[in-house]
Amino acid sequence: MHPKINCDMGEGFAIYSVCDDAEMMKHIDIANVACGFHASDPVVMHRTVRLAKENGVLVGAHPSYPDPQGWGRREMKIEREELRDIIIYQVSALKGFLDMHGMPLNHIKPHGALYGVAARDEEVANAVADAAEVFGVPLYGMANTLHEKVYTSRGVGFVAELYADLPYAGDGRLIIMRQPPKVTTEQVIARCMKAVEEGVVDTLDGHDIKIDFDVICVHSDTTGAVEAAKALKAALR
Amino acid sequence: MHPKINCDMGEGFAIYSVCDDAEMMKHIDIANVACGFHASDPVVMHRTVRLAKENGVLVGAHPSYPDPQGWGRREMKIEREELRDIIIYQVSALKGFLDMHGMPLNHIKPHGALYGVAARDEEVANAVADAAEVFGVPLYGMANTLHEKVYTSRGVGFVAELYADLPYAGDGRLIIMRQPPKVTTEQVIARCMKAVEEGVVDTLDGHDIKIDFDVICVHSDTTGAVEAAKALKAALR
Amino acid sequence: MHPKINCDMGEGFAIYSVCDDAEMMKHIDIANVACGFHASDPVVMHRTVRLAKENGVLVGAHPSYPDPQGWGRREMKIEREELRDIIIYQVSALKGFLDMHGMPLNHIKPHGALYGVAARDEEVANAVADAAEVFGVPLYGMANTLHEKVYTSRGVGFVAELYADLPYAGDGRLIIMRQPPKVTTEQVIARCMKAVEEGVVDTLDGHDIKIDFDVICVHSDTTGAVEAAKALKAALR
Amino acid sequence: MHPKINCDMGEGFAIYSVCDDAEMMKHIDIANVACGFHASDPVVMHRTVRLAKENGVLVGAHPSYPDPQGWGRREMKIEREELRDIIIYQVSALKGFLDMHGMPLNHIKPHGALYGVAARDEEVANAVADAAEVFGVPLYGMANTLHEKVYTSRGVGFVAELYADLPYAGDGRLIIMRQPPKVTTEQVIARCMKAVEEGVVDTLDGHDIKIDFDVICVHSDTTGAVEAAKALKAALR
Repeated sequence: MHPKINCDMGEGFAIYSVCDDAEMMKHIDIANVACGFHASDPVVMHRTVRLAKENGVLVGAHPSYPDPQGWGRREMKIEREELRDIIIYQVSALKGFLDMHGMPLNHIKPHGALYGVAARDEEVANAVADAAEVFGVPLYGMANTLHEKVYTSRGVGFVAELYADLPYAGDGRLIIMRQPPKVTTEQVIARCMKAVEEGVVDTLDGHDIKIDFDVICVHSDTTGAVEAAKALKAALR
Repeated sequence: MHPKINCDMGEGFAIYSVCDDAEMMKHIDIANVACGFHASDPVVMHRTVRLAKENGVLVGAHPSYPDPQGWGRREMKIEREELRDIIIYQVSALKGFLDMHGMPLNHIKPHGALYGVAARDEEVANAVADAAEVFGVPLYGMANTLHEKVYTSRGVGFVAELYADLPYAGDGRLIIMRQPPKVTTEQVIARCMKAVEEGVVDTLDGHDIKIDFDVICVHSDTTGAVEAAKALKAALR
Repeated sequence: MHPKINCDMGEGFAIYSVCDDAEMMKHIDIANVACGFHASDPVVMHRTVRLAKENGVLVGAHPSYPDPQGWGRREMKIEREELRDIIIYQVSALKGFLDMHGMPLNHIKPHGALYGVAARDEEVANAVADAAEVFGVPLYGMANTLHEKVYTSRGVGFVAELYADLPYAGDGRLIIMRQPPKVTTEQVIARCMKAVEEGVVDTLDGHDIKIDFDVICVHSDTTGAVEAAKALKAALR
Repeated sequence: MHPKINCDMGEGFAIYSVCDDAEMMKHIDIANVACGFHASDPVVMHRTVRLAKENGVLVGAHPSYPDPQGWGRREMKIEREELRDIIIYQVSALKGFLDMHGMPLNHIKPHGALYGVAARDEEVANAVADAAEVFGVPLYGMANTLHEKVYTSRGVGFVAELYADLPYAGDGRLIIMRQPPKVTTEQVIARCMKAVEEGVVDTLDGHDIKIDFDVICVHSDTTGAVEAAKALKAALR
């Protein structure tokens, strides 16, 4: 098994930056590019798409709840049709930059709280799937959760992720926080290699659980993220 | 000469509305649909695209400076590349809803201050043309101004507008204000019929000037706009 | 019993308006003024404060979740300290315009979803009370709900409202919707006079329930709101 | 002469940060605190005010054009009354956090493009002074420019700044850019000590010009800013 590495990218805004995107782009295979509702703006999006192209990285959209101040990590109660339109808007906006550079849209991966809520709320999972159907691309998510069930039952492609740098609860749920936790490169490598070789991941409860995944996700806003991605790529080879 | 009527549409936001869009859509041929940077949001955009489809109305994008509070009617100093990206983002976002409903993007018409500045500033006119080239569609503007020269010299299609409800200065420039001026249906009809029949338009100086145009523009946020559009359509027939 | 009439005011934005504020201000006693996070902007706030002063109307702050597109009517999950800061920011911003015109801050009334969530969630009610303590003013709310209990147990003043134009559920909870419901002036008068004279209010279940209140609230974004407020004021006399 | 050091502070947003504010606060005397229109949000503002209090740092407001994406570094054409209200809103919002912690508002210093335009445009300088009069505090600016003339002629207090880390044009104007320029600690110290001792500052033209100033400004978003502030404080002693 040689899982590809995906990373949430282009998550700066205005003069702000959370990662050296140019450097990170060298060590990943797939970029989930922010669309302006939790992070990014038109200039950052264009720059990120260009960097992806230069590095042969596939690009997916990384839409969010409309919540820049909460960085898309606060849950919002939004009805299905409205949420679908909010996602379509963001994904389409990104697509313009991809079209401009002759690149296809590879997938959609909801960001932060939207990802977390879709994993347990049927209405929200359906809103995400409604948007994916418009673009005809697969969705990224976590295996064995409600969103996998909703997406696949509707015939939308599903790609399961292993999280290299976020803590898992004892029941396998991902813990999504406003500020990313501190993890070392060693911890990232250890977790990923164990998952690749033994099919299990450690949880906050202290025991391992079985995990199904197709790709590995690293976050660009984690301290030492570029370092970790580089080492992970080497380790996976 | 049977000029088509275009109208800036979908310029509500959240619970706000400036026009009965469903009613207005019956009386126009072409809609310039707001893209969320001066007015509109994903829900309003989707609703507006649907209304256009139901009424057989062509849809163009109506991008703006990023200025909701100023409703895109305040000039901003933005460099060419950044402005181009800001326009691409908005037009692309709209295109997602058009794709979803199998409709083509007909044109791009900059909104408010962006339109006004493009008519006299070469950098800004070029930024607008840069974006139009990405989508391969013509631009709407005013004949015999700098933006016509810039657009056409680059090979971008140009469609000239007559304004039915905005005042012209003595030198032919359009006066763009935060609050739309009050005009009567009679004034709208009189101006347009004179322009169609004699090729001239009245100015604030009290004299007529020659005007070249392909289409007539009415504004949906003008008082009595639906009434005026309906009467104008009848008069043009 | 001669309850005063309060109204959510200054809820326009940019060129948008939901009510003829200048006219409405003549018929109310107390204005809950929007602070820019669900509606309003600095210009609208200043104009609204001036109108209140000219009409001898008391002014309270009407802070909201940060959600212009949802008009503050979508629930957001925000932690207590962050929510407190979000409320302080808005109330303070309004206070500058009041200070400028020599007017006191009369009270704070949370808007929309923030109001609704505070009525049932202890953390949120406490965040609201935290902010009220900074300004030393009472809070508006609904009698016999959790927020009354939280506010009064902390010694924050509490003023109970009767809603003239929003539906009550059978259990006495208020139904808060994105689009205000249509009610007639007659319905508003009938409900309010019955509440004043008999101390009961009608519910969607078709039966009356007992209601405690100090003031009556009308909404400026309801169709026919000015008419209803005017008639209500006359009826209460 | 022992000029105090002021610094633009609290210019993070959401999870973004441009400076280690806790560390920087130890080396400055006066903080110009961002108010949410170019940078900052309620949480960041509150944290910044608390840090200032803990370090005995005076706090002024640092209001901006409403332009988060341009970080307040893009010029906007806004009329005097509207601009005044935009500034009052921001300064008042900050004042709530100061009141809460028993701290006075020390001054107002416009940010970025607003600062630059006020230095040469009479309407804008007057809008800034209109707001300062509401709060009864002095304004920070550059000596021998139009805004000094406007402020002082109206009786508003004026405090002149020397810029430690921004380039001066040959005519003494400050160059304001989107991305802060790179300067070394040595350059900062050399410039400031020369200004203190000889009353001159170097320009991009390569010659020195006379400079009048009361305080020295360092920027928190310049690379090596904390280092430079620390060294500058030591040098000034």
